[in-house]
Amino acid sequence: MQTRPLSAMLPLRRQALPLRRQSMYLAGDASQHTLNSPQQLSRLIIKKNESSFLDPAGGGYTLSRRLSQKIYAPLIISPRSYFVFTPLLTNTASGSLDFSNIVEPVRDPRAKVDFIQAAARAVNLKKKTVLCEATVVKSGVTESPRTAENERRTEDGPQTTNMKPMQAQRQWEQGETFEVPYDKLVIAVGAVSQTFGTPGVRENAMFFKDIGDAKRVKRRVRECFELAVLPFTTPEMRKWLLNFAIVGAGPTGIELAASLRDFIYSDLMALYPTLDALPKITLYDVAPKVLSMFDESLSRYAMETMEREGIDIKTSHHVKSLRWGQPGAAPPYHMDPKRCLTLTTEEDGEMGVGMCVWATGNAMPKFITESLDSVDAYPGDSIHSIESSLPVAIDVEHASWKFKKASKKGPLLVDGHLRVQLQNETGQTAVLRDVFALGDNAMPETGAPPATAQATSQESKWLADRLNKNDLAQTPPFSFRDLGTMAYIGDERALMQIPHKAGRSSNSFMPEGIKGRTASLIWKTAYIGMSISWRNKLRVAFRWTLNKFFGRDVSRF
Amino acid sequence: MQTRPLSAMLPLRRQALPLRRQSMYLAGDASQHTLNSPQQLSRLIIKKNESSFLDPAGGGYTLSRRLSQKIYAPLIISPRSYFVFTPLLTNTASGSLDFSNIVEPVRDPRAKVDFIQAAARAVNLKKKTVLCEATVVKSGVTESPRTAENERRTEDGPQTTNMKPMQAQRQWEQGETFEVPYDKLVIAVGAVSQTFGTPGVRENAMFFKDIGDAKRVKRRVRECFELAVLPFTTPEMRKWLLNFAIVGAGPTGIELAASLRDFIYSDLMALYPTLDALPKITLYDVAPKVLSMFDESLSRYAMETMEREGIDIKTSHHVKSLRWGQPGAAPPYHMDPKRCLTLTTEEDGEMGVGMCVWATGNAMPKFITESLDSVDAYPGDSIHSIESSLPVAIDVEHASWKFKKASKKGPLLVDGHLRVQLQNETGQTAVLRDVFALGDNAMPETGAPPATAQATSQESKWLADRLNKNDLAQTPPFSFRDLGTMAYIGDERALMQIPHKAGRSSNSFMPEGIKGRTASLIWKTAYIGMSISWRNKLRVAFRWTLNKFFGRDVSRF
Repeated sequence: MQTRPLSAMLPLRRQALPLRRQSMYLAGDASQHTLNSPQQLSRLIIKKNESSFLDPAGGGYTLSRRLSQKIYAPLIISPRSYFVFTPLLTNTASGSLDFSNIVEPVRDPRAKVDFIQAAARAVNLKKKTVLCEATVVKSGVTESPRTAENERRTEDGPQTTNMKPMQAQRQWEQGETFEVPYDKLVIAVGAVSQTFGTPGVRENAMFFKDIGDAKRVKRRVRECFELAVLPFTTPEMRKWLLNFAIVGAGPTGIELAASLRDFIYSDLMALYPTLDALPKITLYDVAPKVLSMFDESLSRYAMETMEREGIDIKTSHHVKSLRWGQPGAAPPYHMDPKRCLTLTTEEDGEMGVGMCVWATGNAMPKFITESLDSVDAYPGDSIHSIESSLPVAIDVEHASWKFKKASKKGPLLVDGHLRVQLQNETGQTAVLRDVFALGDNAMPETGAPPATAQATSQESKWLADRLNKNDLAQTPPFSFRDLGTMAYIGDERALMQIPHKAGRSSNSFMPEGIKGRTASLIWKTAYIGMSISWRNKLRVAFRWTLNKFFGRDVSRF
Repeated sequence: MQTRPLSAMLPLRRQALPLRRQSMYLAGDASQHTLNSPQQLSRLIIKKNESSFLDPAGGGYTLSRRLSQKIYAPLIISPRSYFVFTPLLTNTASGSLDFSNIVEPVRDPRAKVDFIQAAARAVNLKKKTVLCEATVVKSGVTESPRTAENERRTEDGPQTTNMKPMQAQRQWEQGETFEVPYDKLVIAVGAVSQTFGTPGVRENAMFFKDIGDAKRVKRRVRECFELAVLPFTTPEMRKWLLNFAIVGAGPTGIELAASLRDFIYSDLMALYPTLDALPKITLYDVAPKVLSMFDESLSRYAMETMEREGIDIKTSHHVKSLRWGQPGAAPPYHMDPKRCLTLTTEEDGEMGVGMCVWATGNAMPKFITESLDSVDAYPGDSIHSIESSLPVAIDVEHASWKFKKASKKGPLLVDGHLRVQLQNETGQTAVLRDVFALGDNAMPETGAPPATAQATSQESKWLADRLNKNDLAQTPPFSFRDLGTMAYIGDERALMQIPHKAGRSSNSFMPEGIKGRTASLIWKTAYIGMSISWRNKLRVAFRWTLNKFFGRDVSRF
C-alpha cells in the first residue's frame, strides 16, 4: 500500500471491509438507453480477502452488481447517489411516471456495493489512487432554478470553477478532496451533451440526460402554458411560448417529442381550452431523415406518423444560435424565463420558442478530456504489455505517456478487453492491466459498438464475467451483439427494429421490424421488464394503468 | 365596472367567461391539516350570468369547488398552482409517498374554476380590484438550494424585495403587476411560520408547510447520512450531523418526528450499518407536555411511546438561537451545509444538529400585516352596516379606516358570517358586504376555532353554502364543530381524540380516545378517504401497500 494509511482516510469503511484490498473499480452508468450520465458517475471495486464470505445474491443491475462478491468488494465513486433507468426518462418529463419510479438508489442493503458520493477529479496510475471531490451537498444543484451556471454544470457534472457569479454566496459548494486507493479501476463516467459550439446553446438550452433535466423540461412546459394564459401576455408571445423545439431526431429527441405531444394533446389541452391549436412541437435535425438506425420503411413510418400527430419535423436544418428574447429583439439578450427564447436556423431564420431541448450527440466530460490526459509517472507495475512499431528500444520509464484516445477530445481508445491504454510520443502503446473503461467514454479498437444503453450493458456484463473468471488474456475480445432497437413515436405507437442477421436472405418470412400499436405494447412490456427493481416494475405498471383512467400528472410543484 | 375594460386585461378569459361579472373570491388553502400555506394562496370568484349553464359536477375539494357553478365563475389567484393535502406531507418527507400523491392541480378540466398564477399584493376596496404580481416563473424558488434568501422567501411567499444578493442575476424574478376586478372576495392566504424572533431561525431553520419544505427535509436527512460516511468526517461531526432537531411538539412536529424515526430506523439504518446507534431525533417544546389538544392519558401515551421509539422529547425547553457551525465554534458563522448547525437552548446550551425543523405557531403573511392595513378610500358601496358605540354621528367618508384585526400583527377579525370588517379611530366598525376571510388569516369574533384544517374546511363549506343561498344575513353565524383529532406517533401507532360531548357523563362507556395500532389503521384509512381525488386515494393506498414489501424510498435526487 503506497498511499497514506486507509484508516485515516476511510475510517468508516474499515468496519465494513477487510483491510486487504486488491482491486478497485471505477465505473459509470451502465445499461442505459442513452447511457450518457450528465455527471461523472464512477465506480471502484476493491477485491476482498477471498476467504471472507459475502451474500452472493446481491442484485445485479449494473456491472458492479454482477461481480462475484466472494472476490470483490466494489466501491462506487459517483456524484450521483442513484441510478436512472433512462429509457423511461421521457415518461417522467411528460407526467406519465414519477421520478422515483425510474430511480434506483446506489445504496441497497442487499448489494454489497459500497459508495462514496464524490466526483473523480484525477487518477494516479503509479500510486493507484483516485483523487475525489466530495459532492454530497453539491449534487443539489440539479434542483436549482435554471441559470446559465446551473445548466452548464448539469451537463458536465458539478464544476465549481465556472461558478464565478455565485462564488461569494456558495463557498461551501467547494467539496473536500481526498484520495481513494484502488486495485482495479473501471472508468465509466459516460458522456455529456455535444453542442458543436453553437452559440447560446450551452447557456440557454435544456438537455435531457438525468432526472434534473427531466424535471426542468416538465416544469418549463407547464410554466409556458401558465405564462401563456396570463392576462397581459400578447397573442404573439403566447404562440412563441407554446412552441417547443427539440434539436436532434435520434431516439431521445423522437421519444421526448412523442411523449410531450401525448401530454400536451391528451392532458394539457383539456386544462387550457383557450389555447386550442396554439401548442406546437418542432423537431430539428441536420440529417435528411430521422432515426437513421432504423430501416428506411420504419423511419419513414415514424416521420409520417409524427407529422400526422402534429409534430413538425424539420430535417436538414442547421441551428445557428439560441438566445433569450423574442424574434427581432435587439441585444443585449438577458435571460428572462417569463418570456420566450429565439432559435435561429440557417433555413428558417428566427423562431420564438418557449423551450429548446438539445438532444444531439455526445461529448466527453472534462474528466476524460482533461483529467485523463498526460501521465505524470510511468506506472510500470500496471503495464500489461507494450506494443511498438519501432524496431528500436525506447526508455519507457522516461517517455512522455498520455492516455490513448480515439481523437483529441474523444473517448478512451481501449483494447478488445476494454483495457485502457497509454501512448507515447514515438507511437508506442502500453496496455494497462488494471484500468478498464466502458460505455460512452470508451471505444474498443476492435470495433466500436453504437453509443446505446444496450452496448454499455453488454460491455458491463462481459467485463464483470471476465473479472470474475480472472482470465482476461485468454478470453476472446468483446463484441457487440445487436438485439434490436425500439422507439416510441407517440399516440400509442412505436417502432421495433429486428436486427439483420448476416445469413438471412432478404426475402425471409421473418419481418425486419414491427410498428404501430403492437410495437407500443411490446415497448411498454419490455421496459417494465427491464426496470431494475420489482418495486419499480410494479410502480411503472400501476402508474401506466392509472394514467389510462385519470390521465397524466399535470401539477407543477 | 369602474376598472379599465376587462377585455384589455383578460383577453383569454373572455372566451371562457361571460362578460357580466358580479362577484369575486380570493381564498387560500382550505381543508388542510396545518392549513397554513407558505405562499399567498388566493382565490377569487366571479359570479356568472345566472342563465348560463355550467357542468354542475365540478369536483369539490376546496371552498371554490363547492360554489354553485350556475351562480359563480370562480377565479383563483395564487402563486401556487396546486393544492397540497398537508396531513400526508410528513409521509412525503420520509419517502413513504411521492410528492405527486398528495398534490391536486388547481386546474382541473371538470371544475369550472379559473386560475391566475400570481401573488395578491393589495386590495382596493373602493374600486373592487386586487393588485396581483405574476409568479409563474418565480414559484420555482421552492426548488432552489437552501440559502438564507430562499428560506426567507419560502416562508412568506415570493418576495423579491429581500433578494439583494442575487439581484444582478435574477432581475427576471420581478413579476408583472396587474389588477383583477372582483365582485365578491374571499381572503384565505393562510399563515406563515412564527419564529418569535429567535436569532438565526428565520435564516437557518427548515419549515414544514409546503411541498418545497418537505423536499428540503427529505433531501437534508439523506444528505446528512451521506456526509456522515464520507471518509474524512470526524466521529464528532458524524454524531452532530445525525442529530435531527424538531422544534414544536404540536401535531406537525410530532408526526414529522414519528415519520422520520420510522424512516431512519426501518430504512436508512439498513443502508448505513456503520452508523448504528448514532442517529437521533430530538423534539423541543416550551410547553411542559406534548400534544396539548389531546386528553392527558393520550398525550402521556404519546410521550411514552415516542421516548421508547428513541425520540428524545425535551419539553419545557427554550430555544435561544440557531446558527451554522459546530458547537463551540467562534464567529463569524457562515452557512455550510456540508457540516452541522448549532442549536442553543437555555436548558442544555449548545447542541450540534444536522437539521432543525421549526414547526411552532403561526404568524400572518405580509399580505395580511402590511397590504391589508389602512384603507385609502372609504368603500361606501361595499359597506353592509356600521356599528358604533358612540352616540354622535361621524363623517364615515372622511374617517381613517383600517382593517379590523385581532391584534396589530394578528389575523383579520371577521364577524360571525366571516365578513371582513373595518375600524376607524373612534372605534366604529364597518362590516364589508362582499369581502370575506377564513382559515388561519381570519378569526371570527363569535368564537375562534382552532387553527386546524378541520376548522378551515368547515368555514369553507359554511361560506360556500351561504354564498350559494345568497342569504348571508338570515343564517346563524358560523360555529365550529369538533370532530376529533388524530396524530401518528411512529412505529405504526397513532392517537385519536374523540370529542367531548357537553351532555355526556364522564364515566360513559364511550371511550374518549383510541390509541396504538388500531388508531394507526384508522389514521391511514381516514387519510386515504380524505385524499381529494380518486387518483390520489389509489396511489396512496398502493404506495403504502408496496412500502410494506419494499420499504420506503431512500433515493435522493
